[in-house]
Amino acid sequence: MSAKRDIFITEVALRDGSHAINHQFSVEQVVHVARALDQANVPFIEVSHGDGLSGSSLQYGLSHANEMELIEVAVAVCEQATVGVLLLPGIGTIKDLNAAAKLGVGFARIATHVTEADISAQHMARSKELGLFTVGFLMMSHMAPLEKLVEQAKLMESYGADAVYVVDSAGALLPHEVAERIRALKQSIGVEIGFHAHNNLSLAMANTLAAIQEGATRIDGSVRCLGAGAGNTQTEVLVAVLERMGIETGIDLYKMMDLAEEVVAPIIQVPQEITRDSLVLGYAGVYSSFRLHAERAAKKFGIDSRDILIELGKRKAVGGQEDMIIDVAAEIAKRNMTAGMR
Amino acid sequence: MSAKRDIFITEVALRDGSHAINHQFSVEQVVHVARALDQANVPFIEVSHGDGLSGSSLQYGLSHANEMELIEVAVAVCEQATVGVLLLPGIGTIKDLNAAAKLGVGFARIATHVTEADISAQHMARSKELGLFTVGFLMMSHMAPLEKLVEQAKLMESYGADAVYVVDSAGALLPHEVAERIRALKQSIGVEIGFHAHNNLSLAMANTLAAIQEGATRIDGSVRCLGAGAGNTQTEVLVAVLERMGIETGIDLYKMMDLAEEVVAPIIQVPQEITRDSLVLGYAGVYSSFRLHAERAAKKFGIDSRDILIELGKRKAVGGQEDMIIDVAAEIAKRNMTAGMR
Repeated sequence: MSAKRDIFITEVALRDGSHAINHQFSVEQVVHVARALDQANVPFIEVSHGDGLSGSSLQYGLSHANEMELIEVAVAVCEQATVGVLLLPGIGTIKDLNAAAKLGVGFARIATHVTEADISAQHMARSKELGLFTVGFLMMSHMAPLEKLVEQAKLMESYGADAVYVVDSAGALLPHEVAERIRALKQSIGVEIGFHAHNNLSLAMANTLAAIQEGATRIDGSVRCLGAGAGNTQTEVLVAVLERMGIETGIDLYKMMDLAEEVVAPIIQVPQEITRDSLVLGYAGVYSSFRLHAERAAKKFGIDSRDILIELGKRKAVGGQEDMIIDVAAEIAKRNMTAGMR
Repeated sequence: MSAKRDIFITEVALRDGSHAINHQFSVEQVVHVARALDQANVPFIEVSHGDGLSGSSLQYGLSHANEMELIEVAVAVCEQATVGVLLLPGIGTIKDLNAAAKLGVGFARIATHVTEADISAQHMARSKELGLFTVGFLMMSHMAPLEKLVEQAKLMESYGADAVYVVDSAGALLPHEVAERIRALKQSIGVEIGFHAHNNLSLAMANTLAAIQEGATRIDGSVRCLGAGAGNTQTEVLVAVLERMGIETGIDLYKMMDLAEEVVAPIIQVPQEITRDSLVLGYAGVYSSFRLHAERAAKKFGIDSRDILIELGKRKAVGGQEDMIIDVAAEIAKRNMTAGMR
């Protein structure tokens, strides 16, 4: 089945969506979802643990099924779609990449924090050697100034990336901030540009349209909004909106709607609403892993955990800097006390 | 409690949100929600049946509680917020308006189909006589060309409206379509302009930002997205986004987040996801009341109900034209048959 495509959608429900169900996808579920996506003519389907290959662990959450088995069945049932994987260097390894390639995947997305593209060089090189379409995935893109983002994207291009994604991991970007990022990359790199949204500020669709308007041609969607935080750009809705705008995705809208309702919705255990927790993360622009630490510190110092998260966002704290949380909490408690004495 | 407000938010969960729970609000629930909204410094709170005053009926759905009692308790618990009502001429009457005014409401929104502003003249006149802030509410605004919308808004202004709203009842408008509508009104009428979104295409927030950018100063939100279809612009998220943009709503963000999570979320019986049904209505741009008729006709003619709804949207069918549905279904069945014989 061939189709004209102005925009190439990568469906991430079988990867990012695994966060929403605590990585409990079964082989049967992946078979049903991947087959339905393939029949709806979705071009790219990502299958991995939520945190990428080898993410299954006590730290990131144990998967119900072996992800290599999930990838294998997805590849087996897809007649036209290309199945691929996400890999975060440090969590996944070259060995995992080799194993996935052996199973017949067609693309690999190598993901790093927006300032750490350099750790993707070897994985990208190997991905290219394996003949995979290779994507650089710059996570937490809201945390870097434009020049830094451009520099890191150029690095990924130099490592052989066929496309570079702006990834709004925390759902923290506003539409004009997405637009300026995509525009800057468009002016600076020669490969395709992609965008991956989260809906924590109810802006996933707005941001996606802003990205497309500035020239992004690769867009992530998750059917039924099945992703981390408040979910991603809802694929079946995106297809409908783009169709209304005369932008072709090549995806069959009715089949996409049907699989969302009949195949995916019954799998979701938690509806993808915008809850207080996901809103706070988007508003503060911080890692979800900071939340529990902040709540503990807030309790200890008798302050509001949101004040801690917002301050961490301002300081652009990154994963691994959890020790900063106690310092920030102490400062806020002191500030509140001083304010109270005035 | 006074506060600087660049944008005046009207909270509609206790009116539009009544659709989401089949009009089953209890007196206690309205007391809790209205009090919490008041304490969060929300300026305007709408309380009525989902279809406006006197909407409680077999046709529109019977309310659990008497709406005048709901209005009365909301007025009683609000210390700074202004409580108001929605009225659709033909459903609600001048008598209802008088009764609501007697209970102490401060605003009335008189709603008509976008091409039928003329039926609002008497209700608006009475609302003004009662000393209420009077809003013209042009529903299904996507169905009228710009000139028609402007003409109808001017009519409402001439009847004394203090503000006129563009209402995207079906959640069918795209951001540039909202922008051009608000811009046209801004150039044509002298009173304040408002915008009311629905999230059927996941564009409620995008459309709301487009409206604000073009000069709309009155915006509807529903806490926890509690509204008809896929819900409205989620109030607590809107407050967060506007705060990030430096636009003041005067609403306390933390209190708004807390009441969404702790007071409203427990009331919602159906999570406000974008389901196939709401997506189809937004994509087709038709009345939700057409859906069941279309499904019945589709079954009879062996066709897809979505084809009927999309065709009805193209023909701009309005409420009362349900008989058109069978004709459209027959045409589609014939067209499909002809296509099949080729």
